[in-house]
Amino acid sequence: MNYRFLIQYDGTQYEGWQRQTRTEQTIQGKIEKALAEVTGVSVPIIGAGRTDAGVHARGQVANARMETRLTLQELWQAVNEALPDDIFIAAVTEAGDRFHSRFSAKGKIYRYRIRTGAARNVFERRFIWQYGKPLDTAAMAEAADYLTGQHDFKSFCGNSHIKKSTVRTLSGIEMEKKNGELSIIYHGGGFLPAMARILTGTLVEVGEGKKKASDMPDILEARTREAAGFTAPPQGLVLEKVEY
Amino acid sequence: MNYRFLIQYDGTQYEGWQRQTRTEQTIQGKIEKALAEVTGVSVPIIGAGRTDAGVHARGQVANARMETRLTLQELWQAVNEALPDDIFIAAVTEAGDRFHSRFSAKGKIYRYRIRTGAARNVFERRFIWQYGKPLDTAAMAEAADYLTGQHDFKSFCGNSHIKKSTVRTLSGIEMEKKNGELSIIYHGGGFLPAMARILTGTLVEVGEGKKKASDMPDILEARTREAAGFTAPPQGLVLEKVEY
Repeated sequence: MNYRFLIQYDGTQYEGWQRQTRTEQTIQGKIEKALAEVTGVSVPIIGAGRTDAGVHARGQVANARMETRLTLQELWQAVNEALPDDIFIAAVTEAGDRFHSRFSAKGKIYRYRIRTGAARNVFERRFIWQYGKPLDTAAMAEAADYLTGQHDFKSFCGNSHIKKSTVRTLSGIEMEKKNGELSIIYHGGGFLPAMARILTGTLVEVGEGKKKASDMPDILEARTREAAGFTAPPQGLVLEKVEY
Repeated sequence: MNYRFLIQYDGTQYEGWQRQTRTEQTIQGKIEKALAEVTGVSVPIIGAGRTDAGVHARGQVANARMETRLTLQELWQAVNEALPDDIFIAAVTEAGDRFHSRFSAKGKIYRYRIRTGAARNVFERRFIWQYGKPLDTAAMAEAADYLTGQHDFKSFCGNSHIKKSTVRTLSGIEMEKKNGELSIIYHGGGFLPAMARILTGTLVEVGEGKKKASDMPDILEARTREAAGFTAPPQGLVLEKVEY
């Protein structure tokens, strides 16, 4: 049976989604461990998005092929009991045999939260970048327009040794302002490593006046990481949704 | 000058509001340390409510008499920079000379959040008691009505050696249900040690059918801690507001 999992996590304490040999502190590792405890067999799970260390998810999706006598409800409950309290399986469903969380995905939505007001939010500080100064959001929105669409995003890729195509399509970049907070919401078919964070860092440099919106075409054209802005810190980023 | 502070904190990592000699992990201790760093003099601050270890505040109030050449804005900024990121001074204002955060207070509002749905909330888990089962909220509301008003709350006092009067007035207990979560909001003139948590534990026992709403008068009458229910865990409780 091919199971599909909808997953939420506070990524603060983790070295990212992807299983690693040098640490047990990964989301994938914790879920695989919980599944092994519950089903008695070791099963690899496939995640839709490999979120970085410190990045969160409200709508990560993964799938796993495995056999168990447990009902979906029993599996859901037992896995959640075996998981640490900062990871939660929101839903377990049966997926078609050909469902693959990453290859079947049509798009993803990431949200990056920036606190632009001077006031700290102590209750949500783990999920917000406490930037603390105003930003020129009109200039940022203009820059975002240049970045929307199909482009070679190599300048916005955190892995400089990447061999595969770095062409991606951003179908939209929205900005939401409220209560001293700016959210940048990225809708895209797929994202390169650290892409959402480098896009955010670059937009923030536009908002600070260090870069101009009209610099964006040259940055894309350069196809080199140095051309773009800095990588925004991980805690502001959440994988909101994977679309199928 | 008598300064008034509006204070917010995530109490998870702290041994409560009150300064202690055996640990530096208290809210009062951290704020006094930050004020000493900023003003160069050691000043005691007086808090309106002595929240327990693990309890949070969105609207704690404190005052301190001290002299500084800093403007209110400078003081606010410098103290917040000196504080850890889970404590925040939301406002600093000048208070009248006779203002005393505790004695001048007319009332306090505490909120206790209980997750009754099976789904965990990974993002707000530090501020919610993950109870995970349904509760009979109609019975709880009936019990709450018995507890509202002026009573001797000795049965609901966490300090059994208390010498002073244990008569207090609860002007209202509201219940809010939404999204698999129950909030119990206590409005009162003053609260005994652990009172909001013991009230919550007792109401939860009513919601579980272990106690009846009509047991409340006997519990109040008993004037002994054993008569009431258990002490609900600290993480669900937040001091919302101090009224003057």
